Amino acid sequence: MIAEIVSIGTELLMGQIANTDAQYLASQFCALGIDGYHQSVVGDNAARAKAVLAQALERSDLVITSGGLGPTLDDMTKEIVADLWGLPMVEHEPSVRALETFFSRLGRSMTPNNLRQAQFPAGCTVLPNARGTAPGCIVERDGKAIIILPGPPHELQGMWEDSVLPWLEARSDSVLHCRWLHVLGIGESDLETQLRDLIDAQDHMRASLAMYATGKDILLRLAVKCAKGEDPTPEIEPLAEEIYRRLGAHIYAEGMHASLADVIVGRLAGRGQTLSVAESCTGGMVASMIVGVPGASDVLIEGHVTYANQAKVRVLGVREEDLAAHGAVSEVVARQMAEGARAVSGSTYALSTTGIAGPGGGTPEKPVGLVYIACASERCTAVRELRMSGSRERIRTRSALSALDLLREVTKD
Amino acid sequence: MIAEIVSIGTELLMGQIANTDAQYLASQFCALGIDGYHQSVVGDNAARAKAVLAQALERSDLVITSGGLGPTLDDMTKEIVADLWGLPMVEHEPSVRALETFFSRLGRSMTPNNLRQAQFPAGCTVLPNARGTAPGCIVERDGKAIIILPGPPHELQGMWEDSVLPWLEARSDSVLHCRWLHVLGIGESDLETQLRDLIDAQDHMRASLAMYATGKDILLRLAVKCAKGEDPTPEIEPLAEEIYRRLGAHIYAEGMHASLADVIVGRLAGRGQTLSVAESCTGGMVASMIVGVPGASDVLIEGHVTYANQAKVRVLGVREEDLAAHGAVSEVVARQMAEGARAVSGSTYALSTTGIAGPGGGTPEKPVGLVYIACASERCTAVRELRMSGSRERIRTRSALSALDLLREVTKD
Repeated sequence: MIAEIVSIGTELLMGQIANTDAQYLASQFCALGIDGYHQSVVGDNAARAKAVLAQALERSDLVITSGGLGPTLDDMTKEIVADLWGLPMVEHEPSVRALETFFSRLGRSMTPNNLRQAQFPAGCTVLPNARGTAPGCIVERDGKAIIILPGPPHELQGMWEDSVLPWLEARSDSVLHCRWLHVLGIGESDLETQLRDLIDAQDHMRASLAMYATGKDILLRLAVKCAKGEDPTPEIEPLAEEIYRRLGAHIYAEGMHASLADVIVGRLAGRGQTLSVAESCTGGMVASMIVGVPGASDVLIEGHVTYANQAKVRVLGVREEDLAAHGAVSEVVARQMAEGARAVSGSTYALSTTGIAGPGGGTPEKPVGLVYIACASERCTAVRELRMSGSRERIRTRSALSALDLLREVTKD
Repeated sequence: MIAEIVSIGTELLMGQIANTDAQYLASQFCALGIDGYHQSVVGDNAARAKAVLAQALERSDLVITSGGLGPTLDDMTKEIVADLWGLPMVEHEPSVRALETFFSRLGRSMTPNNLRQAQFPAGCTVLPNARGTAPGCIVERDGKAIIILPGPPHELQGMWEDSVLPWLEARSDSVLHCRWLHVLGIGESDLETQLRDLIDAQDHMRASLAMYATGKDILLRLAVKCAKGEDPTPEIEPLAEEIYRRLGAHIYAEGMHASLADVIVGRLAGRGQTLSVAESCTGGMVASMIVGVPGASDVLIEGHVTYANQAKVRVLGVREEDLAAHGAVSEVVARQMAEGARAVSGSTYALSTTGIAGPGGGTPEKPVGLVYIACASERCTAVRELRMSGSRERIRTRSALSALDLLREVTKD
């Protein structure tokens, strides 16, 4: 099946938001073995949206739209689809009642424009929205279908899981089985050189190998399309073994959405070990990455954002004379921050970061992008110097990821 | 001028990354008064990418591509454009030398595939890449242009600012002046009802008003297209005044990329006041939002991620008997966390968060999505109960934003 994503919303054309809906839908296609070759974005303009939808229907079996289901007059995705296929719009009684219930529960009155959300192209399947006021729908004709979903990401994802997934699964006769390997510590072109023969071999094999630079790491996808119920292991396993033989410890996790924080939380929790964090330039980002993993409470005892020097001294016991002699951005201070965090919390490991994230604050000796990270354990404290370029956001993010990777290294078997 | 974004990369079709390049480029169009009506994503497939580019050139004057400039064989944007316009590929000597310098400085050897990055369509303008190995280029023909940019966001943005902006500014005869107002605390459809007449009036006026829900707030854009050197004030000012008259304190900031954290850091820094943060469920996110603002060091004394109960007691002085009686997710504990953070740091204000971010850990009395936030000041401590739905990530993000908004309210004149 070939599917295509059409995102409708002037806010995307204005660059107000990133198109995370398209990312979510694309990753779902990928996991389901649905081929997606095109994505389009168009604004709240009926003529252009209609043209984009018509083109998408020519080259794909299934078109998924996101956005344009709100209560305002700019929101007209359902009307455009009805117009495209010559269907009248009809009121859907259960949706009217759901809207009334929603507003009375909030204690707010319903404005007349909200009722537009209960109008649908005749003959469609309405998809209830458990997380907002705008239901979606599936409109089918001549073996093709348009699935109309709301724009807010949590509403779109909820509706996808509640209603669209079951609908799709009932219609597919094959399943794409994927295995995802996350690689760190090898550059993209080095890695390609090491794996080129395996990537090229896919024309002659059922299993395929592809690599993707994610900005955080490189992701390898091993995939094979199987009939429902067929075991993919004989196709995928030999390929995975060969890749592990070549890359070894550079593969740090499996699973499409696995992250360094997942690996660390899983590893420490499995060993009954704990972590504390002392952050300066990353300012809570390391702790936040850890807390983003469900179950982090078993591992993270505490974090400290010691942005001011006085806080480094008072909270972590960094020595004032070392701050004066070496400056806050120094190997000595990174070490004392990690050791201090470990001492006050009693955690098994402690991570620290201190650096110059910019845009101001750099000097010739200590330029913007100079960051020290440290990991303290019972045995010793590992410190690493990083020199990076880019925006404040990029420097902070890469510092936080590097700190997690240092912990991964320190906690390796 | 009509421009169109074509993003080339299978990683976008796989949903590995969100299309932040398109977001950046679209926001630049918007600020420059360039009309952008379409965005497309296509994979690393020569035939499909060529068809998408050909269509984009039919309906737009300027096409900007991102991605497909890497060293691997999948990267073929320049080759596709050369093929489309029948141009030979030629080697660009300065780019060969830049590549050699880049690799020798890193102490790494250059693999032969890196040399593909020094090949360009004949007659184009090469755009140097100060942040990576892949230069971009501008290819022009028959009054239309294709601007080819690298995919990594910091490389794309750097090249845009260094080379593309000056090129575009030299070619344009008009400028779009925008004023951006950020609105909090009114729902989207309520706001539209309040502003409908002003939005509708734009057909008869030079200044236009548009609203965009960003997921964090609602953004209003007041815009007017002027000749170079023309003053936009007489057009925009009366509209802005009328909107301020209607919305008052719901407008919390001006500027396209302004954020709550900017407002708070600016306000506290201006008054010589300071902040500390004590976070449980948000786990460093509030501190990280604050530290994301350059100059945060003048304001944020320290943050504590007291995820474990023992940390709440030891670091912040939360009373063990209250933890036992009310639980960590309670009004009492949120209050003590904020007051404790303020006491240990000596800051003017302190924010706290404690809640159940899920997916596990909920009970009938304290369901997933129940969060308490508090703001302590000299005079009093304000506590607020939030009840939210959605993913762990969404609950954490909205909790952090709500905490910042509570501080905004407390620090209002």
